[in-house]
Amino acid sequence: MGLTITNQLKRPEPQALASAVEALAARFGNRLITSQAVRDQHAHTTTWLPSQPPDAVVMAQETADIQDVVRICARHSVPVIAFGTGTSLEGQVNAPAGGVCIDLRDMNKVLEVHAEDLDCVIQPGVTRKALNEYLRDQGLFFPIDPGADASLGGMASTRASGTNAVRYGTMRDNVLALKVVRGDGEIITTGTRAKKSSAGYDLTHLFVGAEGTLGIISELTIKLRGIPETIAAAACSFETVRGACQATILAIQTGIPVARIELLNAAQVRACNSYSKLSLPETPLLLLEFHGSENEVAEQSKNFGEIAKECGGGEFSWTTRPEDRTKLWQARHDAYWSVKALRPGAGVVATDVCVPISRLADCVTETEEDLKRLNLLSPIVGHVGDGNFHCSLVCDIDNPDEMARGEDFMHRLVERAQAMGGTCTGEHGIGQGKQKYLRAELGPEALDAMRALKQALDPQNIFNPGKILPAL
Amino acid sequence: MGLTITNQLKRPEPQALASAVEALAARFGNRLITSQAVRDQHAHTTTWLPSQPPDAVVMAQETADIQDVVRICARHSVPVIAFGTGTSLEGQVNAPAGGVCIDLRDMNKVLEVHAEDLDCVIQPGVTRKALNEYLRDQGLFFPIDPGADASLGGMASTRASGTNAVRYGTMRDNVLALKVVRGDGEIITTGTRAKKSSAGYDLTHLFVGAEGTLGIISELTIKLRGIPETIAAAACSFETVRGACQATILAIQTGIPVARIELLNAAQVRACNSYSKLSLPETPLLLLEFHGSENEVAEQSKNFGEIAKECGGGEFSWTTRPEDRTKLWQARHDAYWSVKALRPGAGVVATDVCVPISRLADCVTETEEDLKRLNLLSPIVGHVGDGNFHCSLVCDIDNPDEMARGEDFMHRLVERAQAMGGTCTGEHGIGQGKQKYLRAELGPEALDAMRALKQALDPQNIFNPGKILPAL
Repeated sequence: MGLTITNQLKRPEPQALASAVEALAARFGNRLITSQAVRDQHAHTTTWLPSQPPDAVVMAQETADIQDVVRICARHSVPVIAFGTGTSLEGQVNAPAGGVCIDLRDMNKVLEVHAEDLDCVIQPGVTRKALNEYLRDQGLFFPIDPGADASLGGMASTRASGTNAVRYGTMRDNVLALKVVRGDGEIITTGTRAKKSSAGYDLTHLFVGAEGTLGIISELTIKLRGIPETIAAAACSFETVRGACQATILAIQTGIPVARIELLNAAQVRACNSYSKLSLPETPLLLLEFHGSENEVAEQSKNFGEIAKECGGGEFSWTTRPEDRTKLWQARHDAYWSVKALRPGAGVVATDVCVPISRLADCVTETEEDLKRLNLLSPIVGHVGDGNFHCSLVCDIDNPDEMARGEDFMHRLVERAQAMGGTCTGEHGIGQGKQKYLRAELGPEALDAMRALKQALDPQNIFNPGKILPAL
Repeated sequence: MGLTITNQLKRPEPQALASAVEALAARFGNRLITSQAVRDQHAHTTTWLPSQPPDAVVMAQETADIQDVVRICARHSVPVIAFGTGTSLEGQVNAPAGGVCIDLRDMNKVLEVHAEDLDCVIQPGVTRKALNEYLRDQGLFFPIDPGADASLGGMASTRASGTNAVRYGTMRDNVLALKVVRGDGEIITTGTRAKKSSAGYDLTHLFVGAEGTLGIISELTIKLRGIPETIAAAACSFETVRGACQATILAIQTGIPVARIELLNAAQVRACNSYSKLSLPETPLLLLEFHGSENEVAEQSKNFGEIAKECGGGEFSWTTRPEDRTKLWQARHDAYWSVKALRPGAGVVATDVCVPISRLADCVTETEEDLKRLNLLSPIVGHVGDGNFHCSLVCDIDNPDEMARGEDFMHRLVERAQAMGGTCTGEHGIGQGKQKYLRAELGPEALDAMRALKQALDPQNIFNPGKILPAL
């Protein structure tokens, strides 16, 4: 059992598919793979959505490969699905209508680094950890950290963000320009390396978050930052989620440039205590990071400490020593594994919503009450500076009753967030799992506009069909 | 004489226009204006592009007015042009095919302020100064400052930015969501008040910068900031543009969060000395502003002072006292008027380009040489932290030879910026004046995509026709 997918998509005609695969085999030799095992790997959804493998996988090595796959597939009306690391969470790499997956992992070159301009040009398969490794010697880093070591092409496509978006923004704020392979195999250049531009429609930000449904990103120009002189970590427990949220609101209102501010609810702290042998008070916990000069982070930490106290926070500790920072943040680093360990063998389904920060305490508290009522287990971790939080629902996939309650919980979570002026997804994207919420969130006119854009840029509907837009 | 406009647009059929005006008169009474004087006012281009007045002006008071104008105009295939304050610089409010101008100045209500969320919901006619006046008591401000007291709807439509974009971003970074009236009069909602979202295509950022060519913005949700505790102003002269640019690059690389960093070239400083009776060294000048706590701005100023010294800067002065800050920045505040005073009676044509910051010194220096060679006068002011600079070309509109040299200069300026990896406009937009540069900047594929988007969202081509996209 899994969440229902309503898209009834037409698969390509068998003869057309066979012709496309034949042409791809002639062009790519053993870089065209049709083994079941490899196809299955490329539909791995890391969620409870059913896997829908593509019919074939091409290992791309350069832009011309992407162009040729697209041309061949377009000729035969066969879907094309881009694949980075497969860490997306809403079925973005599934192939509900079959088709050809382009695996971009080997397109992992950093093409140019412009240290003075704080930007670089990369291929889409570069992962964020590999990029930061590459940049470290130059004193530079790329700040977006969604947790997984995702590819930058995939991060752009899902408009990823993560723990330090509160300071550095999301992928939307950090992509300067893209090259995108369109349906006829030609390449759209969406922008320049200039830090800002008002030259025409913002194509860059149309492709960021489009989940590969409008074309395939073949190159990215992204913004970099200087590695901060000093990093401080801090932690503070609160009696209530409301206290933790109030402290966050005040910190942001007063302009403390927190680099990360993460909320772990009581259930998550309990899981971490158990898994990581910690002895944290089992109440909501805020973990923070400050970036700046030594004086700056000292002042920021001190100011936040005062705010925390005002808001009913307990002992406030902060440190700049790397080993102590790691210790303070250990609960956060182990959060995922601590949830996995809660019930060995059960599934963990990750979902996220985002609300105006003034409603965050309400939203988290009501969500906790709902979990209790439904007798479900789901620790909560929040990128609380953005009003964004994640539920990690522990669920026995083979227990239909529990799965039904889980599905009910997910629906109610989204409805709650939307009723509070929020969004059904802050950073995971729509993919397949959240299509049914888009209309309630933005209205039919926005959906009409999105459909018109899809039709305009992908009239053949070959790019990742069945994603984002619900079936009519 | 003026810059050539190549769009040969078809005006509406006289009968269709008459029917539309009749329907508008019936609906709007004396809020429908057809006097030549008022029509002329609404085509004021603040540039050397020829004025092209609309056939009629409607003074809108609420969203329903915009909807009805659009419905009536659509029924008769008559163009609709949105008008805020008329301070755009590339002919954005001209009516090359005639049509109906919707004047939004009376839609100037702040609808909601959410202090905890640092956002507000406003009508499109609210100007930035009025908004900041309204917000001041709550300790909040909206940071984008393009110079003119423009309307927020217009600023969103041209993707405006200005002096403190280096710290707070452009309109792109500060619009959370829009309501947009589409061609059938219905309203598209592009987003929620959540700080981030990955829910579908980024409609918000497609309308930001679209210059009213895809629909009419009827409501904006924008981000606010807390007014900083302390503001420091600083000034430092440099022997060369290169030294000033190098100091800027180092400041940004080391993460000094400058709020404003403005370059005045020697010609601009000379003009300011003359106009404002100052005695600044007539060499490139950097003016800076720092926002933060008292300690923070002190540290930022001190750190920048050291960088400036390394880069050959002269005496570095900084202050937090409001009256001294005003004095330090007087040259910048008077820059426009000082240029106007250089040759009374002559026109001043403003243009802007933006390049990667590593190329800024080259671009400004070569531009200065070009001005000398062409025997033209154009002081330069730069939002140097973004690599964006403005030329204020002083030109006798009645002197065809000077105008020809001016036009030549403008072309060469754009080509130079584009050759350096930059853009033909950092913040003024494309409008009519810069259409001819779009293809060279992004290529034919990007233009194809833009045309497809226009066709998808405005198939009747009634929204501000003849803007952004060059005629085929």
